Amino acid sequence: MSSGVRVADRTRDGSASHGLFITFEGGEGVGKSTQTALLAHTLRDRGHTVVTTREPGGTPTAETLRSLLLDPAQDLDAIEQVLLLNAARHSHMRTVILPAVDRGEIVICDRFIDSTRAYQGAAGGLDDAIQPDLIMDLHRMVMRGRMPDLTVILDAPVETGLGRAAARATATDRFETAQRQFHEKLRQGFLDIAGGEPERCHVISATDPQQDIAVRVLELVLSRLGQS
Amino acid sequence: MSSGVRVADRTRDGSASHGLFITFEGGEGVGKSTQTALLAHTLRDRGHTVVTTREPGGTPTAETLRSLLLDPAQDLDAIEQVLLLNAARHSHMRTVILPAVDRGEIVICDRFIDSTRAYQGAAGGLDDAIQPDLIMDLHRMVMRGRMPDLTVILDAPVETGLGRAAARATATDRFETAQRQFHEKLRQGFLDIAGGEPERCHVISATDPQQDIAVRVLELVLSRLGQS
Repeated sequence: MSSGVRVADRTRDGSASHGLFITFEGGEGVGKSTQTALLAHTLRDRGHTVVTTREPGGTPTAETLRSLLLDPAQDLDAIEQVLLLNAARHSHMRTVILPAVDRGEIVICDRFIDSTRAYQGAAGGLDDAIQPDLIMDLHRMVMRGRMPDLTVILDAPVETGLGRAAARATATDRFETAQRQFHEKLRQGFLDIAGGEPERCHVISATDPQQDIAVRVLELVLSRLGQS
Repeated sequence: MSSGVRVADRTRDGSASHGLFITFEGGEGVGKSTQTALLAHTLRDRGHTVVTTREPGGTPTAETLRSLLLDPAQDLDAIEQVLLLNAARHSHMRTVILPAVDRGEIVICDRFIDSTRAYQGAAGGLDDAIQPDLIMDLHRMVMRGRMPDLTVILDAPVETGLGRAAARATATDRFETAQRQFHEKLRQGFLDIAGGEPERCHVISATDPQQDIAVRVLELVLSRLGQS
């Protein structure tokens, strides 16, 4: 987390520091937290103040909502999940992300709005409901539509996710089939988002070596900072 | 709570039972829970199946959200409160209120959407924000705009609320002034809602004797049931 307020920060190489809001997106096990840590380390080495955070979470209230969302004992449908995710996101934006960006810091967030669009929307069935644009309409309504400056979508074949999930669970055939369909919708959901917003979103293959991915991510970030 | 599913219920006096969704609204201490209990008792005596419930709450998940909303340690702005209230309301509508109304039962709820409009909207400052219609827009978006069939707004002069509040708290002058302004906005918020929706909303003076209020409420309900 950030250690202080600096309005007109300067990096070690003398260029003006720009606030930047970066998100990593993708299914489970694609390496988002590894890339978040690698990028934060490199940017700090270059003199930037970096805030790393995650969704849902990042504030005490949002972490409480995260526990509620992950608790299998709670009966939450997709709309209720989206409302809780938006409450958590608003708290996170208001008290952590936007203040840091305004101070000229770089915020790196593990998951954000695109995970809601992919998990609760594309894979969760909300896109088939009567309100096809519910998630983005709500985002515009309560978050004034504020999007990340740069989003890296780490993409892996469904087999990769399934292989990792299978290693963790003793799955029945029915569970495996449902899980394959879910992963396929989820992957396609992320790819559709990237296709619709090519300026903001960059898809990188999660099966490439982590260090190669880190280099490509750094190039994207430096380009956004005007330092490439 | 309801004891079973009855699609074509009949009351003791032989008329067809209509599902009905009734809400009591108003500031604190105006007698909503007393009137809820009196009405439920009378309607059960007349052979109706009655569900009494409250907001925020009414389901395990919504009660958890209620605790979060009432916890002074949580940092929640008005938009975050509205999102949590909507998540709780959706859960309550989906699993308790609409199934009971569909079974032909009468649901009596202590507070609903109008409390959100009065507390977070008129008195909470959201009406002055960039999104003046946020609360009703959100209600249309996630609850398909479903409103109660009948709403009784129990109205009391600000002095009544302040007198009761003062009896409970050792207030400073600044707190009393802020509280008076809050109660005035709150009361006007409820009266404005009633003025805008005269078919649904009926204002009754909360300073009248409880039994007189109960008689007037029963008349409104029987009229809605076609039994007056």
